[in-house]
Amino acid sequence: MATADKRPYKVIGTRPVRHDGADKVTGRAKYGGDMRLTGMLYGAMVRSPHAHARIVSIDTSQAEALPGVRAVVTSADMPAQGDRVVELGEGAANMRHLTANILARDKVLYRGHAVAAVAADNVHIAEQAARLVRVEYEVLQPVMNVLDAMRDDAPILNDDVRTESLGAAPQSPDQSRPTNIAKHFLFEKGDVAKGFAEADLVIEHEFDTAMVHQGYIEPHNATALWNTDGRITIWMSTQGSFTARQQTAELLRVPVSSVKVVPMEIGGGFGGKISVYLPPVAALLSRKTGRPVKLQMSRADVFEATGPTPGSHMRLKLGVTRDGRITAGEAWIAFDAGAYPGSPVGMACMCVFACYDVPHGRVEGFDVCVNKPRTNAYRAPGSTHVAFAIETIVDEICEKLGLDPLEFRLKNASREGTRRVDGPVFPRIGMVETVQAIRDSQHYQSPLAGPCRGRGVASGFWFNVGMKSSVTATVNLDGTVSLIEGSTDIGGTRTSIAMQLAETLGIAAEDVNPTVVDTDSIGYTDVTGGSRVTFATGIAAVEAARDIQRQMVQRAALLWDVDPAAVKYDDGRLLGPAGKQFTFKELAAEIHQTGGPIIGSGTSSSATQGGAFGTHCVDVEVDPETGKVQILRYTIAQDAGTAIHPSYVEGQMQGGVVQGIGWALNEEYWYDDRGTMRNATYLDYRLPTCYDVPMIETMIVEVPDPQHPYGVRGVGEVPICPPPAAIANAIYHAVGVRMRRLPMSPPNLLSEILQRFQD
Amino acid sequence: MATADKRPYKVIGTRPVRHDGADKVTGRAKYGGDMRLTGMLYGAMVRSPHAHARIVSIDTSQAEALPGVRAVVTSADMPAQGDRVVELGEGAANMRHLTANILARDKVLYRGHAVAAVAADNVHIAEQAARLVRVEYEVLQPVMNVLDAMRDDAPILNDDVRTESLGAAPQSPDQSRPTNIAKHFLFEKGDVAKGFAEADLVIEHEFDTAMVHQGYIEPHNATALWNTDGRITIWMSTQGSFTARQQTAELLRVPVSSVKVVPMEIGGGFGGKISVYLPPVAALLSRKTGRPVKLQMSRADVFEATGPTPGSHMRLKLGVTRDGRITAGEAWIAFDAGAYPGSPVGMACMCVFACYDVPHGRVEGFDVCVNKPRTNAYRAPGSTHVAFAIETIVDEICEKLGLDPLEFRLKNASREGTRRVDGPVFPRIGMVETVQAIRDSQHYQSPLAGPCRGRGVASGFWFNVGMKSSVTATVNLDGTVSLIEGSTDIGGTRTSIAMQLAETLGIAAEDVNPTVVDTDSIGYTDVTGGSRVTFATGIAAVEAARDIQRQMVQRAALLWDVDPAAVKYDDGRLLGPAGKQFTFKELAAEIHQTGGPIIGSGTSSSATQGGAFGTHCVDVEVDPETGKVQILRYTIAQDAGTAIHPSYVEGQMQGGVVQGIGWALNEEYWYDDRGTMRNATYLDYRLPTCYDVPMIETMIVEVPDPQHPYGVRGVGEVPICPPPAAIANAIYHAVGVRMRRLPMSPPNLLSEILQRFQD
Repeated sequence: MATADKRPYKVIGTRPVRHDGADKVTGRAKYGGDMRLTGMLYGAMVRSPHAHARIVSIDTSQAEALPGVRAVVTSADMPAQGDRVVELGEGAANMRHLTANILARDKVLYRGHAVAAVAADNVHIAEQAARLVRVEYEVLQPVMNVLDAMRDDAPILNDDVRTESLGAAPQSPDQSRPTNIAKHFLFEKGDVAKGFAEADLVIEHEFDTAMVHQGYIEPHNATALWNTDGRITIWMSTQGSFTARQQTAELLRVPVSSVKVVPMEIGGGFGGKISVYLPPVAALLSRKTGRPVKLQMSRADVFEATGPTPGSHMRLKLGVTRDGRITAGEAWIAFDAGAYPGSPVGMACMCVFACYDVPHGRVEGFDVCVNKPRTNAYRAPGSTHVAFAIETIVDEICEKLGLDPLEFRLKNASREGTRRVDGPVFPRIGMVETVQAIRDSQHYQSPLAGPCRGRGVASGFWFNVGMKSSVTATVNLDGTVSLIEGSTDIGGTRTSIAMQLAETLGIAAEDVNPTVVDTDSIGYTDVTGGSRVTFATGIAAVEAARDIQRQMVQRAALLWDVDPAAVKYDDGRLLGPAGKQFTFKELAAEIHQTGGPIIGSGTSSSATQGGAFGTHCVDVEVDPETGKVQILRYTIAQDAGTAIHPSYVEGQMQGGVVQGIGWALNEEYWYDDRGTMRNATYLDYRLPTCYDVPMIETMIVEVPDPQHPYGVRGVGEVPICPPPAAIANAIYHAVGVRMRRLPMSPPNLLSEILQRFQD
Repeated sequence: MATADKRPYKVIGTRPVRHDGADKVTGRAKYGGDMRLTGMLYGAMVRSPHAHARIVSIDTSQAEALPGVRAVVTSADMPAQGDRVVELGEGAANMRHLTANILARDKVLYRGHAVAAVAADNVHIAEQAARLVRVEYEVLQPVMNVLDAMRDDAPILNDDVRTESLGAAPQSPDQSRPTNIAKHFLFEKGDVAKGFAEADLVIEHEFDTAMVHQGYIEPHNATALWNTDGRITIWMSTQGSFTARQQTAELLRVPVSSVKVVPMEIGGGFGGKISVYLPPVAALLSRKTGRPVKLQMSRADVFEATGPTPGSHMRLKLGVTRDGRITAGEAWIAFDAGAYPGSPVGMACMCVFACYDVPHGRVEGFDVCVNKPRTNAYRAPGSTHVAFAIETIVDEICEKLGLDPLEFRLKNASREGTRRVDGPVFPRIGMVETVQAIRDSQHYQSPLAGPCRGRGVASGFWFNVGMKSSVTATVNLDGTVSLIEGSTDIGGTRTSIAMQLAETLGIAAEDVNPTVVDTDSIGYTDVTGGSRVTFATGIAAVEAARDIQRQMVQRAALLWDVDPAAVKYDDGRLLGPAGKQFTFKELAAEIHQTGGPIIGSGTSSSATQGGAFGTHCVDVEVDPETGKVQILRYTIAQDAGTAIHPSYVEGQMQGGVVQGIGWALNEEYWYDDRGTMRNATYLDYRLPTCYDVPMIETMIVEVPDPQHPYGVRGVGEVPICPPPAAIANAIYHAVGVRMRRLPMSPPNLLSEILQRFQD
């Protein structure tokens, strides 16, 4: 904890009870599922049973005739979008694809693809009516695998897709024929052939990872009311109320300000609750019926029809000198985007070598459409995939050269000034410090004994983003401050934002009352994602606090009849000439006697953060007869910049690790030949439970990010990146097999173990 | 319309559709009665059947034993208050009285006084349980009339009340014995004896007015959730969310910021929804049960247990010279405060002579407790009472001297520089202009023929107040602005505030989206009352718009790469050097490219407004056989300063007149000897309906108030003041009887007519 001892903070670094704690533990927090409005109708979706089919016709007459049914909508009710590409706060979106994903137009591209929706007096009638919507399909051959989909003779999903070349990728030769390869990335640094020529050892492998779902507990939901004056209100579970507002407005082709999104509490998102699925449909049903309409997904809907993270196929090659210095790296990465373009393969390309100073590198990436749900962000999107590849190859190199894997990382680690293969140069970062923390940890220093046990380490990187946030705060007469913000609170950010306001004002965290409000009530605020909220909304809170400070200084000056320049704001006190002094609370009580109410606002718009790194250490025991892996001990060291609320930082670290363990050992979409997911329930889709994981040990490393007034770095995403690689390395050291396919589930691992014994 | 032709405004003075219109006319607006929360309990109150009694005991055991009952509370659950006097945003409140009014302690002081409350699984069980609460009373003699209550031998309501002397009133001689006379006001100007000596004609009469209810359609309601972390949320119908917050906090003795008031839509208030009745009780029931609890009043509860306007007894004397110049005035005014002190008699004293330049004056007022509900504000509180007295005497003087009543008013009218009897000097006001408007009106200029028909005129005054308001507004990328405010919208103020923001920014009213938010989400804002919102919250909106202007100028300067000083904001456009130009919408689209979101805030804290005047003209026809009065034609001229939205100004004028007609002709609390109101339903309490009133003709006079950037004067209250006097004058000119008692209902008027024929 680099700067802990010198820390001058009074609020930052403490662990107050979270402001929404009582609401959550007493069951009083209001989620989208709690919505009940007078006259509300219930909706149900009609979804495709086929992974790939042409829609011949849709007959809604029987459904409409069912008593209690109030409306049926299909894609014909969605506005035409043409060739619009719109910046939606999570990247540019092709609106034709986005709208077809909401309600399929000519084709269905995955099983579960929404085709129609009904609204009825109750959910039972709605579901019955959904079954009465007759859809005639011409079933087509699905393509489920990224390599299959890249073949010239593959079935084509989208007639309008041509390969877009990005980075240094050459212009795709054939723009006349549709393809499943939507994007082709190429990044190059130095001379990769020269780099490999300088290498004493070159390791190259291919890797596969499974499609994995974010596994949030709360399914998607939306209740919409389309008023007769054209104003639309949406109550929903979302990571970004403004992003949901913009998406809904663009999909419905109404002005953005005519949509009001009321963000309810959120039962998990992890990137999967950025895209909207239900709001435009609920809104259309509301417009047709004049009533509020509520839509909720089932768990199967969530699996089949929302955006998980892509499966991937990767080829990675790394060259090193005998003394363990990386000379060159090359990666070829193909992600299955799902039905429509938009996988995070570009970010995967930027992340793959980011932990290391790679003098010569080349990274190629492909965004490939397959007949699976349109993929979406999932915690450090793309980085976990590539960390699995690079970090297991690094481990193999260290083994082959007899080097300590942490010393290897220290020697090659990215640091301030390192240029990434994709171009940018790192500012002050903490990769080295996280490796040192694990190296010096009690865990890494301890012996690991016993048969079939092994220890693995791995590192990971995530960018973290900045983007835009708004905070407005008002001073109450009792000396407390009410704070409103637009960042939906997924990981305790009400408190981490309130603490930064409190620190700046020199008051207690408990004296700040934070509320997440709707899109009509606060300045624009980007999505809760990219590990940005505590950083960027935190900056806005600090600015709001400074705005309040300025006004409090003026009030004190007025009361003391002195020039405001003669008043100092210092640690929650206002200091005037001749020893005059007010505490914040004392002066707050005088606000009404000295003018109008005090309102402070702050915004932030920084482009990006410095980047986050973590290094993990894990001990496993493998049952060689079943292939089951037990996690014995797990330690994570991560650079949090400055940890505002260490408990939440630790919670993010632990949660990220547990999800990474899920990727590593069990989670995957199991598709049959017809493209039907066979494990779309939590009984069959195997999330880690508390039986599967030990208490995750955490080491917060603090290398403050100078771009934030208190040095915050985002902490939410990077902890998911290293676990699959660290566990794969540990498995190798336990039973001698190098796993290059996720998940390393009992059947997959057992098959490799048996293979090894056969060899 | 003094300044209409010169008006440079583009938005102000237009009549856009109100922003909440669609919600209201489609039934989608959410009122307190619409509240439904998961696990919500329903409450019922136990109320006193006696007007005056000592509580001997309360036995709640039977009620508590009823299945489905979750909690019972009595005054024992309310925190002790001691002798605290707290400033509650509507004047200082004696907390001992306020808390005893919520739940009676030792005594009940009026029929309907709340004694206990229950919460149960449904409203039927709650009502049954309320009947099972056994209260033993020792019944005392009630005192119902203000003059009776002032007698030395009157039954005393409150043991702790001693006469408080205010203004120039001599210290009350006896502070040892309790009294019903809570306050004694005295204001003097000049030498009243000298003034009367200079008079050629002195007229003096006594007047009585009945207790009258505001008659809002929506009964009081409150739903409360007292969370385990000490935070209390109240959803309610209220005129002032911050005032309700403060009252609830003071009554429950919790910090003000631990209470969050969510103001639901309001179905009328007129002053009667400023005091809280149900919120502390619902909160206590919620604390006991851990569940949200909803309380709603019946119509009878509203009549019997909320604050109507006082009945009064007044004596008024006016002296004039032969040529019609006022030489002196003297008034003696006693108001029945109801159970606890706090009638608006002080304001009545200040209003009684306010329309006229009275060189020598003396006004004495008494606030007197009687066994009726604690009275409360009702539209220009106190001013309608005294207008009835002074304006009928003025009419009598004019008749006796053969003067035109409007010319008399023009000769004696208050104008800029006139000193009121209670001290203050008027700034620029529009009394003269309203008289001129009526004088020149088509109505006043037209003949009135027919038997038993008469025409009357009268004027009225109301202060209007300023107080504190907050507005925060944010710019959307589509060039619209979202505005949040703390002023609950009773009369269309969402739109009148939005229009002022729009005018200042040079955008359309429809491009501003106003929302009334809860007390956690906006800066402190005083009650919607005192005709203050369009004035004071309007100032805050103008300030917020200027804040946005400043930021827009900076963004334009950034885009043009020029000094911000070189950029002008002019009529919705940003003008730069060399003809550079952005419209507001064009620049709004660039906000995200030039920095953070744009948030503007504004507050106001002005002490008061310039004051509002109106002059009315009414034609009536009296049926001499029944005493029924038919309003034939009614014209109101009122100074609105600058009319922001003329339709709403006209609506306020018309609504005030109709309520004044109700006071004049029908409305009154009918008490029997035991102090029971016998007409506590809308069948028996006779509000005017559309059958009773013609279309009220309106003449907006505009004498801008220089204290507001656009010259706004509040318009909501003063229109209720003149109608009883104008109608009394018209009745006199129709049938020759001078009515000095309200209401001038058929039996009351018939009795005077019969008396006249007997004479």
